[in-house]
Amino acid sequence: MNTRYRRQSWLTVGLLIFFLVNAIPAQAAPPLPSWNEGPTKSAIVEFVEKVTKKGSPDFVPENQRIATFDNDGTLWAEQPVYFQLIYAIDQVKKMAPEHPEWKTEEPFASVLKGDMKNVIASGKEGLMKILAATHANMTAEKFRANVSDWLKTARHPKTGRPFTEMVYQPQLELLDYLRANGFKTFIVSGGGVDFMRVFAEKTYGIPPDQVIGSSLKAKYEVKDGKPIIIKLPEINLVDDKEGKPVGIHQYIGQRPIFAAGNSDGDYQMLEWTTAGAGPRFGIILHHTDAEREWAYDRESHVGKLDKALDDAGKKGWTVIDMQNDWKTVFPPAKQ
Amino acid sequence: MNTRYRRQSWLTVGLLIFFLVNAIPAQAAPPLPSWNEGPTKSAIVEFVEKVTKKGSPDFVPENQRIATFDNDGTLWAEQPVYFQLIYAIDQVKKMAPEHPEWKTEEPFASVLKGDMKNVIASGKEGLMKILAATHANMTAEKFRANVSDWLKTARHPKTGRPFTEMVYQPQLELLDYLRANGFKTFIVSGGGVDFMRVFAEKTYGIPPDQVIGSSLKAKYEVKDGKPIIIKLPEINLVDDKEGKPVGIHQYIGQRPIFAAGNSDGDYQMLEWTTAGAGPRFGIILHHTDAEREWAYDRESHVGKLDKALDDAGKKGWTVIDMQNDWKTVFPPAKQ
Repeated sequence: MNTRYRRQSWLTVGLLIFFLVNAIPAQAAPPLPSWNEGPTKSAIVEFVEKVTKKGSPDFVPENQRIATFDNDGTLWAEQPVYFQLIYAIDQVKKMAPEHPEWKTEEPFASVLKGDMKNVIASGKEGLMKILAATHANMTAEKFRANVSDWLKTARHPKTGRPFTEMVYQPQLELLDYLRANGFKTFIVSGGGVDFMRVFAEKTYGIPPDQVIGSSLKAKYEVKDGKPIIIKLPEINLVDDKEGKPVGIHQYIGQRPIFAAGNSDGDYQMLEWTTAGAGPRFGIILHHTDAEREWAYDRESHVGKLDKALDDAGKKGWTVIDMQNDWKTVFPPAKQ
Repeated sequence: MNTRYRRQSWLTVGLLIFFLVNAIPAQAAPPLPSWNEGPTKSAIVEFVEKVTKKGSPDFVPENQRIATFDNDGTLWAEQPVYFQLIYAIDQVKKMAPEHPEWKTEEPFASVLKGDMKNVIASGKEGLMKILAATHANMTAEKFRANVSDWLKTARHPKTGRPFTEMVYQPQLELLDYLRANGFKTFIVSGGGVDFMRVFAEKTYGIPPDQVIGSSLKAKYEVKDGKPIIIKLPEINLVDDKEGKPVGIHQYIGQRPIFAAGNSDGDYQMLEWTTAGAGPRFGIILHHTDAEREWAYDRESHVGKLDKALDDAGKKGWTVIDMQNDWKTVFPPAKQ
C-alpha cells in the first residue's frame, strides 16, 4: 500500500465516521419560527424548495436567485411617519442654533414649533428644503456619522425602542432563510440609500452595495489635500413606484425572482419581478395588527396599500396578514 | 458512556483523522501563477496576507474587503479602440438597411464609409448620436440580446480572437486570488454598465450587481400588458475620472481598500481608495509590451496614462510593468 493510497483510505474512514455521526442529529432547525403555520408560510417554503431543488423544472441557478425587499413598512415599521422624516426633524432641531433665520423661515419655523400639519402643508418644496438642509451640502462621511449618532439615542415615539429594534422578526428570519438557500438579498426602497446603508448590514445582514434607495447627486473633490464626496441638494433617483424597476435595472442589472413590499409604491417592483419567465414570487405585507403594530391600508398617509391589494389575487401575489401569519412582530429588546 | 458522549468522541476521532490526513498535502497551489516573481507580485501578496491575518494590526474584516477594477485596459485590452465602440460601429452597419437616411447623415455616413477619422472629428455630439442609435430607444432585454449575439461572432481586428478572450490571464488570477481571500470584487469602468454586464459574470466571475459603469437613464412602462425597461438617450452617469468615486459612493456605498486601473481616468478612483485610513492598495497596469500586447501611455488616444504615472510614486501606487511582471498576457484560446 503506497502512502498516497493509505492517506486516501484514512481520509475515507475519517469522512465516513464524520458524516455518519453527523447524519443522526442532522435535522436543521425548521425555518421561519416566527411565522404561524398556514398558507402564507407554506407558499414561501414551497417556492424556496422548488427553485433550489436540482433537477426540478423550477430550479433556478444561484446566480439568478435575486430577492428584493422594500424597507419602510416591509422590513421595519413606518408609523406614525417614516423614520427618516423623524431623523430629518430631529436634525433641524439640532442644527437650529446655527440657523437663527429658521425661526421665521418655512418650513423650518413649523418644524421647530412642532406644527407637523404646517410642515406637511409645505408640500414637496418644503420637504425638499428640509432634505437639502439635513441630507445635503455635507460630506457622505459626515452624513453617515450623523445618522449613526442619531440611531444610538433616538427612540420610537410610541414604543420607546431604538428604531433598529422596530424591525420585523419574521422578516429577519425570511431574509436568513433566503440567504441560507443561496439567494442574494437586496433592499429596494423609496427611503434614502445613504440613510439605510448606515444600519442595513448590522440590522438585516444586507451589505451597503445591496441597498438601493432614493439618492441625491454627489460630487468628488479634493479639499485641503483630502478627497471627499459631497452630497448635493439635487435628486438623483426616486426609488419608488416606476422608479423601483428602474433602480433594480441600474443597480442590480437583472430581474429578481422574489420581491416583497407593503404598499402601492411597491406595485411596479412586484409587477416587474413576477412578470418574468419561470418561477416568481411576489409578497405583500398587509398591516392588520392594531394591537401589536398598526392596522392601515387604503387610506393611510404612509404605506398606502390600495391598488396592490386589489390586484394581488389576479397577479398571484401572496398577502401576509400580519395578525394571523406572524407569531411575533418585533424581536425581543436587546439588553 | 452515554450516547451523546459516544457520538461526540467518534466525531472527534473522525475530525482528527480528517484534519491530520489533510494537513499533509494541504499546500494550496501558489497564487498568481502567471505573474513573474518580483516586487509587484510580492507587494500584492504581502498586502493580501496582512489584511487577512487575524490579530494583525492591518487586519480588515471581510465586509470591508472591497476591491474595484477598471475594465478597458485593466481587465481586457482596449486597442486599437474601446471594444464597445467597435460594437457600436458594427451595430450601425447592421442597422443601416433600415436607415437609408444614414447614407448622407453624419456621423453615420462616415461610419458606413469606414472613415473613422471623420467619425472621431464629429466629437461628443457625433458619438452621442451613435450611442443613441445603438444603445438607447430599445428595451434593456433587446440591448442585452444584441450584445450577446455580437460577442458570439465578433472578432478582434488584430488577433482574430473573440473579445471575451482578449482578457488578461494575470488579472483573472488576481480576481480569483482576492475572492479566495474574502474580497468582494467590483468593476468600476467608464464603459457602459449594460454592455459589461452581458459578459462580466462568465468572463470575470463578477455578477451584474457588482458591475458599475457609465449608464443611460431608463424608464419603466407596461406596453401591451408586458412590463419593460426602456433605455433612454440621456446620460445618467459618466463613470470616469471624478465620476468613479461618485459611482463607488452611489453603487457600493463604502470606500474600497484595493483599486486597480490603467489610465488617468482611474486617477480619482485610486486617489479615493488609497487616501482612506488603514491598509490600502492602488495598482496601475502600464502597457509596456508591444510584442505580446501594445505599448502606450502618455500620448495614447485610448487609456492615456500620464498624471497617474507621474504621481504613482508619491501616492504609493504599485505599477505593473506588463512586459516584465506578466508571464502570460492572454489566456489560451478556448476550443
